[in-house]
Amino acid sequence: MESNSVAAFHIIKVTSPVNGNNSSVFGETEDLLAVEEPLEIRVVYGAENNRQQKNISVTMCTPGNDNELATGFLFTEGIITHKEDIRNCFSGGDNIIVADLHPGISFDPQKLERHFYTSSSCGVCGKSSIESVKNNIKNKAAIDKIQVNASVIKALPDSLRKHQEVFKHTGGLHASAVFDLDGKLLFTREDVGRHNALDKLIGAALQSGQVPLDQHILLLSGRASFELIQKAAMAGIKFVCAVGAPSSLAVEMAKECGITLIGFLRDGRFNIYSGEQRVAK
Amino acid sequence: MESNSVAAFHIIKVTSPVNGNNSSVFGETEDLLAVEEPLEIRVVYGAENNRQQKNISVTMCTPGNDNELATGFLFTEGIITHKEDIRNCFSGGDNIIVADLHPGISFDPQKLERHFYTSSSCGVCGKSSIESVKNNIKNKAAIDKIQVNASVIKALPDSLRKHQEVFKHTGGLHASAVFDLDGKLLFTREDVGRHNALDKLIGAALQSGQVPLDQHILLLSGRASFELIQKAAMAGIKFVCAVGAPSSLAVEMAKECGITLIGFLRDGRFNIYSGEQRVAK
Repeated sequence: MESNSVAAFHIIKVTSPVNGNNSSVFGETEDLLAVEEPLEIRVVYGAENNRQQKNISVTMCTPGNDNELATGFLFTEGIITHKEDIRNCFSGGDNIIVADLHPGISFDPQKLERHFYTSSSCGVCGKSSIESVKNNIKNKAAIDKIQVNASVIKALPDSLRKHQEVFKHTGGLHASAVFDLDGKLLFTREDVGRHNALDKLIGAALQSGQVPLDQHILLLSGRASFELIQKAAMAGIKFVCAVGAPSSLAVEMAKECGITLIGFLRDGRFNIYSGEQRVAK
Repeated sequence: MESNSVAAFHIIKVTSPVNGNNSSVFGETEDLLAVEEPLEIRVVYGAENNRQQKNISVTMCTPGNDNELATGFLFTEGIITHKEDIRNCFSGGDNIIVADLHPGISFDPQKLERHFYTSSSCGVCGKSSIESVKNNIKNKAAIDKIQVNASVIKALPDSLRKHQEVFKHTGGLHASAVFDLDGKLLFTREDVGRHNALDKLIGAALQSGQVPLDQHILLLSGRASFELIQKAAMAGIKFVCAVGAPSSLAVEMAKECGITLIGFLRDGRFNIYSGEQRVAK
Protein backbone atom coordinates (compact mmCIF):
# COMPACT_ATOMS: atom_id res chain seq x y z
CA MET A 1 0.00 0.00 0.00
CA GLU A 2 1.48 3.32 -1.07
CA SER A 3 0.91 6.32 1.15
CA ASN A 4 -0.57 8.40 -1.69
CA SER A 5 -3.22 5.81 -2.48
CA VAL A 6 -5.47 7.06 0.33
CA ALA A 7 -6.46 10.59 1.30
CA ALA A 8 -8.09 11.87 4.50
CA PHE A 9 -11.29 13.91 4.31
CA HIS A 10 -13.18 15.74 7.01
CA ILE A 11 -16.72 14.35 6.93
CA ILE A 12 -20.02 14.21 8.81
CA LYS A 13 -21.01 10.72 9.90
CA VAL A 14 -24.76 10.24 10.32
CA THR A 15 -26.01 7.29 12.34
CA SER A 16 -29.28 6.11 13.83
CA PRO A 17 -29.55 6.12 17.63
CA VAL A 18 -29.64 2.73 19.35
CA ASN A 19 -33.16 3.29 20.62
CA GLY A 20 -34.25 2.86 17.02
CA ASN A 21 -36.42 5.94 16.60
CA ASN A 22 -36.40 7.89 13.37
CA SER A 23 -33.90 10.56 14.46
CA SER A 24 -30.27 10.82 13.38
CA VAL A 25 -27.01 11.51 15.16
CA PHE A 26 -24.54 13.77 13.32
CA GLY A 27 -20.85 13.56 14.22
CA GLU A 28 -17.69 15.00 12.66
CA THR A 29 -14.78 12.71 11.85
CA GLU A 30 -11.91 12.00 9.47
CA ASP A 31 -12.46 9.42 6.74
CA LEU A 32 -9.90 7.77 4.46
CA LEU A 33 -10.83 7.51 0.79
CA ALA A 34 -9.15 5.78 -2.11
CA VAL A 35 -7.37 8.34 -4.28
CA GLU A 36 -8.54 8.63 -7.88
CA GLU A 37 -6.43 10.63 -10.34
CA PRO A 38 -6.07 10.82 -14.10
CA LEU A 39 -3.01 9.06 -15.51
CA GLU A 40 -2.05 9.74 -19.09
CA ILE A 41 -0.19 6.92 -20.83
CA ARG A 42 2.12 8.01 -23.66
CA VAL A 43 4.30 5.96 -25.94
CA VAL A 44 7.51 6.98 -27.68
CA TYR A 45 7.87 5.01 -30.88
CA GLY A 46 9.34 4.90 -34.38
CA ALA A 47 12.75 4.50 -35.96
CA GLU A 48 15.75 5.59 -33.89
CA ASN A 49 16.33 8.68 -36.04
CA ASN A 50 12.65 9.67 -36.06
CA ARG A 51 11.18 9.09 -32.61
CA GLN A 52 7.64 10.31 -32.01
CA GLN A 53 5.39 10.60 -28.98
CA LYS A 54 1.68 9.80 -28.77
CA ASN A 55 -0.88 9.96 -25.95
CA ILE A 56 -2.77 6.69 -26.08
CA SER A 57 -4.95 6.71 -22.97
CA VAL A 58 -6.01 8.64 -19.93
CA THR A 59 -7.38 6.41 -17.24
CA MET A 60 -8.77 7.38 -13.84
CA CYS A 61 -6.70 5.36 -11.39
CA THR A 62 -5.15 5.17 -7.96
CA PRO A 63 -1.58 6.48 -7.78
CA GLY A 64 1.18 3.92 -7.45
CA ASN A 65 2.62 1.25 -9.75
CA ASP A 66 2.19 3.57 -12.75
CA ASN A 67 4.97 1.77 -14.56
CA GLU A 68 3.20 -1.58 -14.11
CA LEU A 69 -0.10 -0.07 -15.16
CA ALA A 70 1.35 1.28 -18.40
CA THR A 71 3.16 -2.00 -19.07
CA GLY A 72 0.08 -4.09 -18.36
CA PHE A 73 -2.18 -1.82 -20.39
CA LEU A 74 0.13 -1.92 -23.44
CA PHE A 75 0.34 -5.69 -23.12
CA THR A 76 -3.36 -6.43 -22.63
CA GLU A 77 -4.23 -4.05 -25.49
CA GLY A 78 -1.87 -6.03 -27.71
CA ILE A 79 0.52 -3.12 -28.36
CA ILE A 80 3.48 -5.00 -26.86
CA THR A 81 4.02 -8.74 -26.52
CA HIS A 82 7.22 -8.93 -24.39
CA LYS A 83 8.58 -6.85 -21.56
CA GLU A 84 11.62 -6.08 -23.73
CA ASP A 85 9.33 -4.21 -26.12
CA ILE A 86 9.49 -1.35 -23.61
CA ARG A 87 13.03 0.03 -23.36
CA ASN A 88 12.24 2.40 -20.56
CA CYS A 89 9.17 3.56 -18.64
CA PHE A 90 9.40 6.92 -16.89
CA SER A 91 7.37 9.80 -15.50
CA GLY A 92 6.60 12.49 -18.07
CA GLY A 93 5.43 14.95 -15.40
CA ASP A 94 2.47 15.04 -13.08
CA ASN A 95 -0.01 12.28 -13.93
CA ILE A 96 1.89 11.23 -17.04
CA ILE A 97 3.73 7.95 -17.63
CA VAL A 98 5.78 7.46 -20.77
CA ALA A 99 6.67 4.07 -22.26
CA ASP A 100 9.64 4.21 -24.60
CA LEU A 101 8.96 1.43 -27.11
CA HIS A 102 11.78 -0.51 -28.74
CA PRO A 103 12.36 0.85 -32.27
CA GLY A 104 11.62 -2.62 -33.62
CA ILE A 105 8.02 -2.47 -32.35
CA SER A 106 5.53 -1.71 -35.06
CA PHE A 107 3.16 0.89 -33.61
CA ASP A 108 0.54 2.52 -35.78
CA PRO A 109 -1.34 5.35 -34.04
CA GLN A 110 -4.06 5.31 -36.71
CA LYS A 111 -4.70 1.60 -36.22
CA LEU A 112 -4.78 2.19 -32.49
CA GLU A 113 -7.23 5.03 -32.96
CA ARG A 114 -9.50 2.74 -34.92
CA HIS A 115 -9.09 0.12 -32.23
CA PHE A 116 -10.12 2.54 -29.50
CA TYR A 117 -13.16 3.65 -31.44
CA THR A 118 -14.34 0.14 -31.94
CA SER A 119 -13.51 -0.68 -28.35
CA SER A 120 -12.98 2.18 -25.89
CA SER A 121 -11.60 1.38 -22.50
CA CYS A 122 -14.87 -0.33 -21.61
CA GLY A 123 -14.13 -3.39 -23.69
CA VAL A 124 -13.61 -4.61 -27.16
CA CYS A 125 -16.17 -5.72 -29.66
CA GLY A 126 -16.74 -9.38 -28.92
CA LYS A 127 -15.97 -11.67 -31.78
CA SER A 128 -12.87 -10.25 -33.40
CA SER A 129 -11.06 -9.87 -30.11
CA ILE A 130 -12.02 -13.38 -29.02
CA GLU A 131 -10.47 -14.68 -32.23
CA SER A 132 -7.26 -12.77 -31.74
CA VAL A 133 -7.01 -13.82 -28.11
CA LYS A 134 -7.60 -17.46 -29.00
CA ASN A 135 -4.71 -17.28 -31.43
CA ASN A 136 -2.44 -16.30 -28.54
CA ILE A 137 -2.99 -19.49 -26.55
CA LYS A 138 0.13 -21.61 -25.99
CA ASN A 139 1.14 -24.48 -23.70
CA LYS A 140 -2.09 -26.31 -24.34
CA ALA A 141 -0.91 -29.60 -22.81
CA ALA A 142 0.11 -28.05 -19.47
CA ILE A 143 -3.10 -26.06 -19.34
CA ASP A 144 -5.25 -29.15 -19.82
CA LYS A 145 -3.76 -30.69 -16.68
CA ILE A 146 -4.63 -27.86 -14.26
CA GLN A 147 -6.58 -29.05 -11.24
CA VAL A 148 -7.62 -26.90 -8.30
CA ASN A 149 -9.28 -28.28 -5.22
CA ALA A 150 -12.65 -26.79 -4.22
CA SER A 151 -11.34 -26.18 -0.70
CA VAL A 152 -8.43 -24.17 -2.13
CA ILE A 153 -10.89 -22.03 -4.10
CA LYS A 154 -13.08 -21.36 -1.08
CA ALA A 155 -10.09 -20.07 0.88
CA LEU A 156 -8.96 -17.49 -1.71
CA PRO A 157 -11.11 -14.48 -0.67
CA ASP A 158 -9.95 -14.65 2.96
CA SER A 159 -6.38 -14.86 1.83
CA LEU A 160 -6.81 -11.78 -0.38
CA ARG A 161 -8.66 -9.87 2.32
CA LYS A 162 -5.74 -10.23 4.70
CA HIS A 163 -3.53 -8.50 2.14
CA GLN A 164 -6.01 -5.93 0.87
CA GLU A 165 -4.92 -3.06 3.09
CA VAL A 166 -6.47 -0.09 1.35
CA PHE A 167 -9.83 -1.73 0.87
CA LYS A 168 -9.97 -2.35 4.59
CA HIS A 169 -9.46 1.35 5.17
CA THR A 170 -11.60 2.82 2.44
CA GLY A 171 -13.94 0.20 1.01
CA GLY A 172 -13.21 1.90 -2.29
CA LEU A 173 -10.71 -0.23 -4.17
CA HIS A 174 -10.89 -3.18 -6.49
CA ALA A 175 -8.21 -5.83 -6.11
CA SER A 176 -6.74 -8.43 -8.42
CA ALA A 177 -4.57 -11.21 -7.03
CA VAL A 178 -2.55 -14.08 -8.45
CA PHE A 179 -2.31 -17.37 -6.54
CA ASP A 180 -0.51 -20.59 -7.35
CA LEU A 181 -2.63 -23.70 -7.90
CA ASP A 182 -2.30 -24.59 -4.20
CA GLY A 183 -3.88 -21.29 -3.18
CA LYS A 184 -0.72 -19.47 -2.11
CA LEU A 185 -1.06 -15.72 -2.71
CA LEU A 186 1.80 -14.56 -4.94
CA PHE A 187 1.00 -10.92 -5.55
CA THR A 188 -1.89 -8.47 -5.57
CA ARG A 189 -2.66 -5.00 -6.91
CA GLU A 190 -5.41 -2.51 -6.04
CA ASP A 191 -7.05 0.38 -7.86
CA VAL A 192 -10.29 2.37 -8.00
CA GLY A 193 -10.70 0.93 -11.51
CA ARG A 194 -10.98 -2.83 -11.74
CA HIS A 195 -9.34 -2.87 -15.18
CA ASN A 196 -6.43 -0.86 -13.75
CA ALA A 197 -5.94 -3.27 -10.85
CA LEU A 198 -5.69 -6.11 -13.37
CA ASP A 199 -3.42 -4.17 -15.74
CA LYS A 200 -1.08 -3.41 -12.82
CA LEU A 201 -1.06 -7.07 -11.84
CA ILE A 202 -0.37 -8.28 -15.36
CA GLY A 203 2.24 -5.54 -15.83
CA ALA A 204 4.01 -6.70 -12.67
CA ALA A 205 3.87 -10.32 -13.84
CA LEU A 206 5.23 -9.39 -17.27
CA GLN A 207 8.07 -7.38 -15.75
CA SER A 208 9.07 -10.29 -13.50
CA GLY A 209 8.95 -12.79 -16.36
CA GLN A 210 5.89 -14.69 -15.08
CA VAL A 211 3.64 -14.32 -18.15
CA PRO A 212 1.92 -16.51 -19.34
CA LEU A 213 0.24 -17.05 -15.97
CA ASP A 214 -1.09 -20.41 -17.11
CA GLN A 215 -0.36 -22.33 -13.92
CA HIS A 216 -2.02 -19.78 -11.67
CA ILE A 217 -5.36 -18.61 -10.31
CA LEU A 218 -6.57 -15.04 -10.78
CA LEU A 219 -8.91 -13.70 -8.10
CA LEU A 220 -11.01 -10.59 -8.78
CA SER A 221 -12.47 -8.80 -5.75
CA GLY A 222 -15.62 -7.72 -7.59
CA ARG A 223 -17.56 -8.62 -10.69
CA ALA A 224 -16.14 -10.31 -13.78
CA SER A 225 -16.81 -8.32 -16.93
CA PHE A 226 -15.89 -9.24 -20.48
CA GLU A 227 -12.99 -6.81 -20.41
CA LEU A 228 -11.39 -8.47 -17.39
CA ILE A 229 -11.67 -11.96 -18.90
CA GLN A 230 -10.15 -10.61 -22.09
CA LYS A 231 -7.19 -9.13 -20.22
CA ALA A 232 -6.77 -12.40 -18.30
CA ALA A 233 -6.80 -14.31 -21.58
CA MET A 234 -4.12 -12.02 -23.00
CA ALA A 235 -1.92 -12.95 -20.01
CA GLY A 236 -2.54 -16.68 -20.56
CA ILE A 237 -4.57 -17.03 -17.36
CA LYS A 238 -6.78 -20.16 -17.46
CA PHE A 239 -8.39 -20.04 -14.04
CA VAL A 240 -10.36 -16.97 -12.93
CA CYS A 241 -12.37 -16.58 -9.72
CA ALA A 242 -14.55 -13.55 -8.97
CA VAL A 243 -16.12 -12.62 -5.65
CA GLY A 244 -18.98 -11.00 -7.58
CA ALA A 245 -21.16 -11.88 -10.54
CA PRO A 246 -19.86 -12.52 -14.03
CA SER A 247 -21.62 -10.98 -17.02
CA SER A 248 -23.05 -13.08 -19.82
CA LEU A 249 -20.27 -12.08 -22.21
CA ALA A 250 -17.61 -12.82 -19.61
CA VAL A 251 -18.92 -16.40 -19.45
CA GLU A 252 -19.06 -16.69 -23.24
CA MET A 253 -15.51 -15.32 -23.55
CA ALA A 254 -14.26 -17.74 -20.88
CA LYS A 255 -15.85 -20.69 -22.68
CA GLU A 256 -14.39 -19.61 -26.02
CA CYS A 257 -10.90 -19.26 -24.54
CA GLY A 258 -10.99 -22.41 -22.40
CA ILE A 259 -10.85 -20.43 -19.18
CA THR A 260 -12.33 -21.82 -15.99
CA LEU A 261 -14.59 -19.09 -14.62
CA ILE A 262 -15.91 -19.10 -11.07
CA GLY A 263 -18.25 -16.45 -9.70
CA PHE A 264 -19.98 -15.52 -6.44
CA LEU A 265 -17.02 -16.93 -4.54
CA ARG A 266 -17.94 -16.08 -0.96
CA ASP A 267 -19.09 -17.61 2.31
CA GLY A 268 -17.76 -21.08 1.49
CA ARG A 269 -19.60 -21.41 -1.82
CA PHE A 270 -19.14 -20.60 -5.47
CA ASN A 271 -20.59 -21.12 -8.94
CA ILE A 272 -18.66 -22.66 -11.84
CA TYR A 273 -19.63 -21.01 -15.13
CA SER A 274 -17.02 -22.56 -17.39
CA GLY A 275 -14.27 -25.19 -17.33
CA GLU A 276 -15.55 -27.26 -14.42
CA GLN A 277 -13.20 -30.16 -15.32
CA ARG A 278 -10.40 -28.23 -13.61
CA VAL A 279 -12.20 -28.12 -10.25
CA ALA A 280 -11.48 -31.13 -8.04
CA LYS A 281 -13.77 -32.16 -5.19
CA MET B 1 -36.69 -4.98 -16.78
CA GLU B 2 -36.36 -6.06 -20.40
CA SER B 3 -36.36 -9.75 -21.15
CA ASN B 4 -33.03 -9.59 -23.03
CA SER B 5 -31.22 -8.04 -20.07
CA VAL B 6 -30.72 -11.42 -18.40
CA ALA B 7 -29.54 -14.74 -19.84
CA ALA B 8 -29.73 -18.24 -18.39
CA PHE B 9 -26.58 -20.35 -18.06
CA HIS B 10 -26.14 -23.95 -17.05
CA ILE B 11 -23.72 -23.93 -14.12
CA ILE B 12 -22.27 -26.02 -11.30
CA LYS B 13 -23.07 -24.72 -7.84
CA VAL B 14 -20.52 -25.70 -5.19
CA THR B 15 -21.49 -25.47 -1.54
CA SER B 16 -20.12 -26.60 1.79
CA PRO B 17 -22.06 -29.32 3.63
CA VAL B 18 -23.91 -28.26 6.76
CA ASN B 19 -21.73 -30.46 8.97
CA GLY B 20 -18.97 -27.96 8.30
CA ASN B 21 -16.20 -30.31 7.19
CA ASN B 22 -13.84 -29.37 4.39
CA SER B 23 -15.66 -31.25 1.61
CA SER B 24 -17.81 -29.70 -1.10
CA VAL B 25 -21.17 -30.49 -2.64
CA PHE B 26 -21.43 -30.08 -6.43
CA GLY B 27 -24.86 -29.54 -7.97
CA GLU B 28 -26.03 -28.59 -11.45
CA THR B 29 -28.47 -25.72 -11.89
CA GLU B 30 -29.54 -22.80 -14.07
CA ASP B 31 -28.28 -19.34 -13.22
CA LEU B 32 -29.42 -15.96 -14.53
CA LEU B 33 -26.69 -13.50 -15.47
CA ALA B 34 -26.81 -9.88 -16.52
CA VAL B 35 -26.30 -9.61 -20.27
CA GLU B 36 -23.25 -7.62 -21.41
CA GLU B 37 -22.97 -6.70 -25.09
CA PRO B 38 -21.08 -4.11 -27.11
CA LEU B 39 -23.13 -1.13 -28.26
CA GLU B 40 -21.68 1.16 -30.87
CA ILE B 41 -22.90 4.75 -30.75
CA ARG B 42 -22.80 6.60 -34.08
CA VAL B 43 -23.76 10.15 -34.93
CA VAL B 44 -25.00 11.52 -38.24
CA TYR B 45 -23.99 15.18 -38.51
CA GLY B 46 -23.17 18.04 -40.84
CA ALA B 47 -25.05 20.33 -43.20
CA GLU B 48 -28.25 19.00 -44.72
CA ASN B 49 -26.66 18.57 -48.15
CA ASN B 50 -23.52 16.91 -46.76
CA ARG B 51 -24.49 14.51 -43.98
CA GLN B 52 -21.76 12.32 -42.56
CA GLN B 53 -21.63 9.44 -40.11
CA LYS B 54 -19.08 8.82 -37.36
CA ASN B 55 -18.65 6.07 -34.76
CA ILE B 56 -17.98 7.83 -31.50
CA SER B 57 -18.04 5.09 -28.88
CA VAL B 58 -18.42 1.41 -28.25
CA THR B 59 -19.47 0.66 -24.72
CA MET B 60 -20.05 -2.72 -23.09
CA CYS B 61 -23.59 -2.51 -21.77
CA THR B 62 -26.79 -4.34 -20.97
CA PRO B 63 -29.32 -4.36 -23.83
CA GLY B 64 -32.35 -2.13 -23.47
CA ASN B 65 -32.90 1.64 -23.47
CA ASP B 66 -30.24 2.04 -26.18
CA ASN B 67 -31.86 5.27 -27.30
CA GLU B 68 -31.65 6.71 -23.79
CA LEU B 69 -28.07 5.52 -23.44
CA ALA B 70 -27.00 7.27 -26.64
CA THR B 71 -28.90 10.42 -25.69
CA GLY B 72 -27.48 10.49 -22.18
CA PHE B 73 -23.95 9.76 -23.40
CA LEU B 74 -24.05 12.55 -25.99
CA PHE B 75 -25.42 14.93 -23.35
CA THR B 76 -23.03 14.07 -20.53
CA GLU B 77 -20.09 14.22 -22.96
CA GLY B 78 -21.20 17.73 -23.93
CA ILE B 79 -21.89 16.87 -27.58
CA ILE B 80 -25.55 17.90 -27.29
CA THR B 81 -27.18 20.32 -24.86
CA HIS B 82 -30.91 19.84 -25.58
CA LYS B 83 -33.04 16.85 -26.53
CA GLU B 84 -33.96 18.65 -29.75
CA ASP B 85 -30.31 18.45 -30.81
CA ILE B 86 -31.09 14.83 -31.77
CA ARG B 87 -33.62 14.71 -34.62
CA ASN B 88 -33.95 10.95 -34.54
CA CYS B 89 -32.34 8.03 -32.75
CA PHE B 90 -32.60 4.63 -34.43
CA SER B 91 -31.02 1.18 -34.64
CA GLY B 92 -28.24 0.94 -37.22
CA GLY B 93 -28.18 -2.85 -37.08
CA ASP B 94 -27.14 -5.34 -34.41
CA ASN B 95 -25.49 -3.56 -31.48
CA ILE B 96 -25.51 -0.19 -33.23
CA ILE B 97 -27.48 2.91 -32.27
CA VAL B 98 -27.45 5.97 -34.50
CA ALA B 99 -28.20 9.50 -33.31
CA ASP B 100 -29.14 11.84 -36.14
CA LEU B 101 -27.95 15.25 -34.95
CA HIS B 102 -29.74 18.45 -35.93
CA PRO B 103 -27.83 20.11 -38.79
CA GLY B 104 -27.41 23.18 -36.57
CA ILE B 105 -25.29 21.22 -34.07
CA SER B 106 -21.63 21.91 -34.39
CA PHE B 107 -19.90 18.54 -34.22
CA ASP B 108 -16.18 18.24 -34.84
CA PRO B 109 -14.93 14.63 -34.95
CA GLN B 110 -11.32 15.78 -34.59
CA LYS B 111 -12.08 17.74 -31.46
CA LEU B 112 -13.99 14.73 -30.14
CA GLU B 113 -11.04 12.49 -30.90
CA ARG B 114 -8.77 14.78 -28.92
CA HIS B 115 -11.33 14.78 -26.13
CA PHE B 116 -11.41 10.99 -25.99
CA TYR B 117 -7.66 10.77 -25.92
CA THR B 118 -7.37 13.18 -23.06
CA SER B 119 -10.26 11.50 -21.32
CA SER B 120 -11.32 8.01 -22.46
CA SER B 121 -14.58 6.63 -21.21
CA CYS B 122 -13.02 6.20 -17.78
CA GLY B 123 -13.23 9.88 -16.96
CA VAL B 124 -11.99 13.22 -18.00
CA CYS B 125 -8.87 15.02 -16.90
CA GLY B 126 -9.85 16.79 -13.70
CA LYS B 127 -9.46 20.51 -13.80
CA SER B 128 -10.56 21.53 -17.27
CA SER B 129 -13.71 19.49 -17.12
CA ILE B 130 -14.55 20.78 -13.66
CA GLU B 131 -14.30 24.31 -15.05
CA SER B 132 -16.54 23.56 -17.99
CA VAL B 133 -19.09 21.81 -15.80
CA LYS B 134 -19.14 24.69 -13.34
CA ASN B 135 -19.95 27.03 -16.19
CA ASN B 136 -23.08 24.98 -16.87
CA ILE B 137 -24.64 25.60 -13.46
CA LYS B 138 -27.97 27.47 -13.51
CA ASN B 139 -30.84 28.10 -11.09
CA LYS B 140 -28.46 28.89 -8.27
CA ALA B 141 -31.13 30.36 -5.99
CA ALA B 142 -33.39 27.29 -6.11
CA ILE B 143 -30.40 25.00 -5.62
CA ASP B 144 -29.31 26.82 -2.48
CA LYS B 145 -32.66 26.07 -0.87
CA ILE B 146 -32.57 22.27 -1.25
CA GLN B 147 -33.09 20.44 2.05
CA VAL B 148 -33.36 16.69 2.46
CA ASN B 149 -34.18 15.04 5.72
CA ALA B 150 -31.74 12.43 7.05
CA SER B 151 -34.59 9.95 7.48
CA VAL B 152 -35.48 10.38 3.80
CA ILE B 153 -31.88 9.65 2.82
CA LYS B 154 -31.70 6.51 4.95
CA ALA B 155 -34.79 5.11 3.24
CA LEU B 156 -33.52 5.49 -0.34
CA PRO B 157 -31.62 2.16 -0.75
CA ASP B 158 -34.61 0.07 0.33
CA SER B 159 -36.81 1.97 -2.06
CA LEU B 160 -34.39 1.31 -4.92
CA ARG B 161 -33.97 -2.34 -3.98
CA LYS B 162 -37.69 -2.94 -4.33
CA HIS B 163 -37.49 -1.74 -7.92
CA GLN B 164 -34.14 -3.26 -8.87
CA GLU B 165 -35.45 -6.39 -10.49
CA VAL B 166 -32.44 -7.60 -12.43
CA PHE B 167 -30.01 -7.10 -9.59
CA LYS B 168 -32.20 -9.28 -7.44
CA HIS B 169 -31.91 -12.03 -10.03
CA THR B 170 -28.28 -11.71 -11.03
CA GLY B 171 -26.37 -9.58 -8.54
CA GLY B 172 -24.63 -8.26 -11.61
CA LEU B 173 -26.08 -4.85 -12.39
CA HIS B 174 -25.42 -1.31 -11.28
CA ALA B 175 -28.45 0.92 -10.81
CA SER B 176 -28.98 4.66 -10.88
CA ALA B 177 -32.20 6.15 -9.56
CA VAL B 178 -33.76 9.61 -9.35
CA PHE B 179 -35.93 10.54 -6.36
CA ASP B 180 -37.73 13.74 -5.52
CA LEU B 181 -36.62 15.64 -2.41
CA ASP B 182 -39.21 13.76 -0.33
CA GLY B 183 -37.66 10.43 -1.27
CA LYS B 184 -40.23 9.33 -3.83
CA LEU B 185 -38.62 7.14 -6.50
CA LEU B 186 -39.27 8.69 -9.92
CA PHE B 187 -37.31 6.44 -12.28
CA THR B 188 -34.39 4.04 -12.33
CA ARG B 189 -32.08 2.43 -14.89
CA GLU B 190 -29.75 -0.58 -14.64
CA ASP B 191 -26.66 -1.71 -16.53
CA VAL B 192 -23.53 -3.83 -16.13
CA GLY B 193 -21.61 -0.55 -16.48
CA ARG B 194 -22.28 2.06 -13.82
CA HIS B 195 -21.64 4.91 -16.27
CA ASN B 196 -24.15 3.37 -18.68
CA ALA B 197 -26.82 3.10 -15.98
CA LEU B 198 -26.36 6.82 -15.29
CA ASP B 199 -26.25 7.77 -18.98
CA LYS B 200 -29.53 5.88 -19.52
CA LEU B 201 -31.09 7.65 -16.55
CA ILE B 202 -29.96 11.09 -17.69
CA GLY B 203 -30.98 10.30 -21.28
CA ALA B 204 -34.47 9.36 -20.06
CA ALA B 205 -34.67 12.55 -18.01
CA LEU B 206 -33.54 14.66 -20.94
CA GLN B 207 -36.07 13.05 -23.27
CA SER B 208 -38.90 13.72 -20.83
CA GLY B 209 -37.87 17.33 -20.31
CA GLN B 210 -36.73 16.90 -16.70
CA VAL B 211 -33.14 18.16 -17.04
CA PRO B 212 -31.72 19.98 -15.08
CA LEU B 213 -32.47 17.55 -12.25
CA ASP B 214 -31.69 20.23 -9.68
CA GLN B 215 -34.60 19.52 -7.34
CA HIS B 216 -33.89 15.79 -7.15
CA ILE B 217 -31.74 13.16 -5.46
CA LEU B 218 -29.56 10.77 -7.46
CA LEU B 219 -28.89 7.38 -5.86
CA LEU B 220 -26.03 5.19 -7.13
CA SER B 221 -26.14 1.50 -6.18
CA GLY B 222 -22.34 1.20 -5.98
CA ARG B 223 -19.32 3.42 -5.62
CA ALA B 224 -19.14 7.07 -6.64
CA SER B 225 -16.29 7.75 -9.05
CA PHE B 226 -15.25 11.07 -10.52
CA GLU B 227 -16.89 10.18 -13.81
CA LEU B 228 -20.30 9.64 -12.21
CA ILE B 229 -20.16 12.93 -10.32
CA GLN B 230 -19.16 14.65 -13.54
CA LYS B 231 -22.12 13.17 -15.40
CA ALA B 232 -24.43 14.15 -12.52
CA ALA B 233 -23.06 17.69 -12.65
CA MET B 234 -23.74 17.88 -16.39
CA ALA B 235 -27.39 17.02 -15.66
CA GLY B 236 -27.60 19.72 -12.98
CA ILE B 237 -27.92 17.20 -10.15
CA LYS B 238 -27.00 18.75 -6.78
CA PHE B 239 -27.66 15.87 -4.41
CA VAL B 240 -25.91 12.52 -4.93
CA CYS B 241 -26.07 9.48 -2.63
CA ALA B 242 -23.97 6.36 -3.15
CA VAL B 243 -24.38 3.01 -1.43
CA GLY B 244 -20.63 2.45 -1.81
CA ALA B 245 -17.50 4.51 -1.26
CA PRO B 246 -16.70 7.72 -3.12
CA SER B 247 -13.22 8.27 -4.52
CA SER B 248 -11.09 11.23 -3.50
CA LEU B 249 -11.62 12.97 -6.83
CA ALA B 250 -15.37 12.39 -6.68
CA VAL B 251 -15.42 14.32 -3.38
CA GLU B 252 -13.25 17.10 -4.79
CA MET B 253 -15.44 17.37 -7.88
CA ALA B 254 -18.60 17.46 -5.74
CA LYS B 255 -17.13 20.26 -3.60
CA GLU B 256 -16.07 22.25 -6.66
CA CYS B 257 -19.53 21.93 -8.22
CA GLY B 258 -21.53 22.53 -5.04
CA ILE B 259 -22.94 19.01 -5.05
CA THR B 260 -23.98 17.33 -1.82
CA LEU B 261 -22.24 13.95 -1.82
CA ILE B 262 -23.23 11.15 0.52
CA GLY B 263 -21.46 7.78 0.61
CA PHE B 264 -21.72 4.43 2.39
CA LEU B 265 -25.48 4.87 2.56
CA ARG B 266 -26.56 1.58 4.09
CA ASP B 267 -27.94 0.01 7.27
CA GLY B 268 -29.44 3.27 8.53
CA ARG B 269 -26.24 5.28 8.34
CA PHE B 270 -24.30 7.39 5.87
CA ASN B 271 -21.33 9.74 5.51
CA ILE B 272 -21.63 13.30 4.18
CA TYR B 273 -18.56 14.22 2.15
CA SER B 274 -19.73 17.53 0.73
CA GLY B 275 -22.63 19.99 1.01
CA GLU B 276 -23.83 19.03 4.50
CA GLN B 277 -25.93 22.22 4.75
CA ARG B 278 -28.55 20.52 2.59
CA VAL B 279 -29.04 17.61 5.02
CA ALA B 280 -31.67 18.30 7.70
CA LYS B 281 -31.76 16.41 10.98
